[in-house]
Amino acid sequence: MRIGIIGAGSWGTAVGIILGKKGYEVVMWDRNKEIIPQINVSKENLTYLPGVLIPSNVTAVEKIEDCVAGAEFIILAIPSQAVRIVCKQLVNYVKEEQILVSLAKGIEIGTLKRISEVVEEFFPTNPIAVLSGPSHAEEVSRDIPTTIAVSSKSKEIAEYIQDVFITPKFRIYTNPDIVGVELGGAVKNVIALAAGVSDGLGYGDNTKAALMTRGIAEIARLGVALGAEPLTFAGLSGIGDLIVTCTSMHSRNRRAGILIGQGKTMEEAVAEVKMVVEGINTTKSTYELAKKMNVEMPIVTALYNVLFNNKDAKVAVSELMLRDKTHEIEEVAQKMW
Amino acid sequence: MRIGIIGAGSWGTAVGIILGKKGYEVVMWDRNKEIIPQINVSKENLTYLPGVLIPSNVTAVEKIEDCVAGAEFIILAIPSQAVRIVCKQLVNYVKEEQILVSLAKGIEIGTLKRISEVVEEFFPTNPIAVLSGPSHAEEVSRDIPTTIAVSSKSKEIAEYIQDVFITPKFRIYTNPDIVGVELGGAVKNVIALAAGVSDGLGYGDNTKAALMTRGIAEIARLGVALGAEPLTFAGLSGIGDLIVTCTSMHSRNRRAGILIGQGKTMEEAVAEVKMVVEGINTTKSTYELAKKMNVEMPIVTALYNVLFNNKDAKVAVSELMLRDKTHEIEEVAQKMW
Repeated sequence: MRIGIIGAGSWGTAVGIILGKKGYEVVMWDRNKEIIPQINVSKENLTYLPGVLIPSNVTAVEKIEDCVAGAEFIILAIPSQAVRIVCKQLVNYVKEEQILVSLAKGIEIGTLKRISEVVEEFFPTNPIAVLSGPSHAEEVSRDIPTTIAVSSKSKEIAEYIQDVFITPKFRIYTNPDIVGVELGGAVKNVIALAAGVSDGLGYGDNTKAALMTRGIAEIARLGVALGAEPLTFAGLSGIGDLIVTCTSMHSRNRRAGILIGQGKTMEEAVAEVKMVVEGINTTKSTYELAKKMNVEMPIVTALYNVLFNNKDAKVAVSELMLRDKTHEIEEVAQKMW
Repeated sequence: MRIGIIGAGSWGTAVGIILGKKGYEVVMWDRNKEIIPQINVSKENLTYLPGVLIPSNVTAVEKIEDCVAGAEFIILAIPSQAVRIVCKQLVNYVKEEQILVSLAKGIEIGTLKRISEVVEEFFPTNPIAVLSGPSHAEEVSRDIPTTIAVSSKSKEIAEYIQDVFITPKFRIYTNPDIVGVELGGAVKNVIALAAGVSDGLGYGDNTKAALMTRGIAEIARLGVALGAEPLTFAGLSGIGDLIVTCTSMHSRNRRAGILIGQGKTMEEAVAEVKMVVEGINTTKSTYELAKKMNVEMPIVTALYNVLFNNKDAKVAVSELMLRDKTHEIEEVAQKMW
């Protein structure tokens, strides 16, 4: 079986390595042409995933049409704001039966669409799925035990991807709630930025745990308004991915947040992290989506003001911590007291 | 107002400092008599909370009856398996109107009771409350922003404690679900031990996030069987406390787990951590409680076998990761597919 991967960043490459080791013919493509010989000749992605051997059956091609030709799966492992551009490039080459799998975590600026919705615009009759969960590429590529959720409207497609992608160290669980799975993966980057800001300001583990607890609650609130299942946010693509992103130094969103907390501007932080910081774009789109859906998201709003309205980070975190004396969970208080 | 604190470990002392700074007269007692001059003379708890100044209105006494005499609140800041012994000592001195606040996190071995249930046995007509949430003593005592839940059957008592204990840096939220609040605080130590074992074995952030995600799910399952509200486990005393305990080096439960993962025996790990490792006792009592309630708790069971049946830690973690290919959340799959 042939699998095409669009995007040879750290995550695309890690998934390529997993699938290559399973014996599939993996063909990769990236906008950045200097990665092609790294994959084909050096067998190591020095730019984005140094130190990990790429199997011989994983190769890279120059032309995007050669990546997708004859592929049973086309995996989109690109920044979320690039998905529309890439779909435009692909629209003449993708056949109806090819399965599209998005690994992108974000919400499109402007349209406020989830990434699978953007893909569906271009490929309305293709099977579409998403993969999301606590899965740093650096660890997955080194066979560190990892779990992840696959979601699709079609149960058969989700279970087929589970069969094809699963390994003893890369466990895949199916979940029909594509809205919840995608939203958790996207908005957790915003909370990770905020958690990084808290760390950068010198606050502690207690403070960050409070931010994360309230962060997943506000993600779930938005998700439910958009039709997601609340339980999904308690799972791998919700709290699981939030935990790994907020507590690991592998997370570029968290690292960018730390720099901002230490007093750098958004632009300086992005320049220092070097890779795409999805959480910055997602802060903008989530802020707008929350307004549109009339959902309260205090952490997203605070971070939006820090990033885009020059609000002082310390003041923003203090305001988040200084809510009124209140019940922890209004529904539980109403029910039991 | 006078407040008595039984137990001058790190957490009891941190709460004493918070309340002392608010101007209350705080009287502490500890079994370990060498701490008394540290509190009264050095104004620093060198044994358990070095480096933090204790306010002048926080003092320590030799006799437990002098600690509770005239106190509006009696705070129990002792290891959970010591609560019964201390309650026996207190039973002749505590008056009916005195409010008892438990900070202990555990489940009593043998009786399988929550700590507030043990307290209630001795003081059936006193107001009883519990405090639980992501709150490392080392950070609280240094005024790092912290949030915590207070729970009591009585709304008035919970709100009174909120008023008395709250500061701008120590935010208290009320929650009526005492079963959920206590259970989350207790069993999270078991999951933190397991997370530490995973770290000690050299597994990664992805693995630990998976363990934590499934850990909170199994805590919630036990909680619901015992009458708790599921939402409580998504809050401060549930996922919040779990996060802080599993990811911080302040957690002695996690540190003990790391040592066990590195190949030390349970006894060697406890000796090296020095302080009481609540998670070990709680593994035993939670394992038995889960059996009694007929609730599946795979992580608790795996850790029980590692600690008490000499099971190899690496085999135990591998078995946890190697579940069958399945839906992530059966209820959601049933509903949507």
